[in-house]
Amino acid sequence: MKNILIIGCGLLGSSVLRSIHKNKLADKVYIYEKSKKNISRIKNLKLPGTVVSSLKEAVTKSNFIIFCTPMSEYKNIIMKINNYISPNTLITDVGSSKIESSKIIKKFLKKGIAWTSSHPIAGSEVSGPQHGKSNMFEGRWCILIKEKNTIKKNLNFLKKFWEKIGSKVTIMSPEKHDKIFSITSHLPHLIAYNLVKSAQDFEKKQSYDLIKYSAGGLRDFSRIAASNEIMWRDIFFNNNKNISNAIDLFIKNLKSFKSDINSKNNKSIINKLIETKKVRSKIIKLKQDINKPDFGRS
Amino acid sequence: MKNILIIGCGLLGSSVLRSIHKNKLADKVYIYEKSKKNISRIKNLKLPGTVVSSLKEAVTKSNFIIFCTPMSEYKNIIMKINNYISPNTLITDVGSSKIESSKIIKKFLKKGIAWTSSHPIAGSEVSGPQHGKSNMFEGRWCILIKEKNTIKKNLNFLKKFWEKIGSKVTIMSPEKHDKIFSITSHLPHLIAYNLVKSAQDFEKKQSYDLIKYSAGGLRDFSRIAASNEIMWRDIFFNNNKNISNAIDLFIKNLKSFKSDINSKNNKSIINKLIETKKVRSKIIKLKQDINKPDFGRS
Repeated sequence: MKNILIIGCGLLGSSVLRSIHKNKLADKVYIYEKSKKNISRIKNLKLPGTVVSSLKEAVTKSNFIIFCTPMSEYKNIIMKINNYISPNTLITDVGSSKIESSKIIKKFLKKGIAWTSSHPIAGSEVSGPQHGKSNMFEGRWCILIKEKNTIKKNLNFLKKFWEKIGSKVTIMSPEKHDKIFSITSHLPHLIAYNLVKSAQDFEKKQSYDLIKYSAGGLRDFSRIAASNEIMWRDIFFNNNKNISNAIDLFIKNLKSFKSDINSKNNKSIINKLIETKKVRSKIIKLKQDINKPDFGRS
Repeated sequence: MKNILIIGCGLLGSSVLRSIHKNKLADKVYIYEKSKKNISRIKNLKLPGTVVSSLKEAVTKSNFIIFCTPMSEYKNIIMKINNYISPNTLITDVGSSKIESSKIIKKFLKKGIAWTSSHPIAGSEVSGPQHGKSNMFEGRWCILIKEKNTIKKNLNFLKKFWEKIGSKVTIMSPEKHDKIFSITSHLPHLIAYNLVKSAQDFEKKQSYDLIKYSAGGLRDFSRIAASNEIMWRDIFFNNNKNISNAIDLFIKNLKSFKSDINSKNNKSIINKLIETKKVRSKIIKLKQDINKPDFGRS
């Protein structure tokens, strides 16, 4: 058995913690968390781990370290753990973009230490350890990142770890990962933020009180646009090239829609609307969303 | 008491039907529906109304007619009912855009007949009478449209009608209505369709199988992008000017986000992400969405 150190115990970190506890995957779990508010939440919730105020002991005693902080924290924490970490300890993280963080890791992590990156496709618009759940990863994909120097044994270890807490695991390169998620996750978040921003601008300009009529569609976007700003800034900055390309494709398509609408091009618009509809059934079939109208929320 | 004729008995029409029945608001409800598939669904479900194959008798005998068809059907049906309708009968509709349909009504409806328009802010991505619900309008806004020649008595009647089936009623001009909903509903739908279209284009171009990773954000948009294509084509075509302006504002803001991302402008992006976050709490406070993370769907 193992000792595990979770660095950053917000929504994802505390969900990893709960999942480890539920599935009895560690002898001891250490928690390093810099927010005092989160620490008192963790203590009030009696979460099953030991909060440490210094990394020294926890890093030395752990076989497995999981970074669950925003990606912009990686460098600082790497600089701290370099003093204590041994080559027997495996590091992973749950960050949502991979190329840039891999550069940081290569540049700053002490030579000889293995960091094999994970990306569990799970999360929510709420933040903080009070929102974590022990079933957060069940039935969800977890992407493991394979680079040139990735050690197979570490991939196997991570595969088993994520499978034990309920995930389906797949392996890909950082380049493929960052392209795919620029479209399936990063662009959707940016679009949601941008739509809500546009509604706010419109509301100010027109002096209309329009948020109360958001049930016609806007409210769906407001959920995603309430996601943690630090985490999303980091993702947008780190994966900026792929996201820029995705924005360009999105704007090109939006202009084509605008042209269909203004020229009342029936055939073109109906084709588009019928084609996009198929994706929903595919997502339901792949069990990537709840099979109920309106997310079952009404 | 009254006889009511519902023209078009899909998701909304059948929900109006169920709500009328539940609240005992009519002596008799007639249903006119052109789709044979929907007619057999209505009969199999034993929905509480009389399906008529000709409009003559139902129009003559009804005091109140509710159009629940796509807006592109209005003209054809108006031409049919003109032969039978009496000035004692009030017409309303549940269409999602108002300026263009008001022009059609003024141009084609027999003189002396009152049509006062309604827009209940309710619906879903699924279509057809089998998905209708008797509580569809409970707690939801219903907009009544007031034009120069709108008769106060008719507004009052409609206000009572929608309130009896659970809605909150507000009154505005077609111009204000079409502006507000271009932002809170029409643009969000177009953006959702466009995002899913962009993901499909990307998938084809890259030969990546990416829809299975949609749980990171894309899946939310796929729900709205599965909405009825005829209904949404009509809305996009009818409200094209406001939607075009909304698209322009959206693209302007998206380019500003892109610039923030590529120049790593921390202050500007964090400001935006914090501001947009506030809208979610406002929407929850206004009871326009469920107060649970992830729409409560997990």
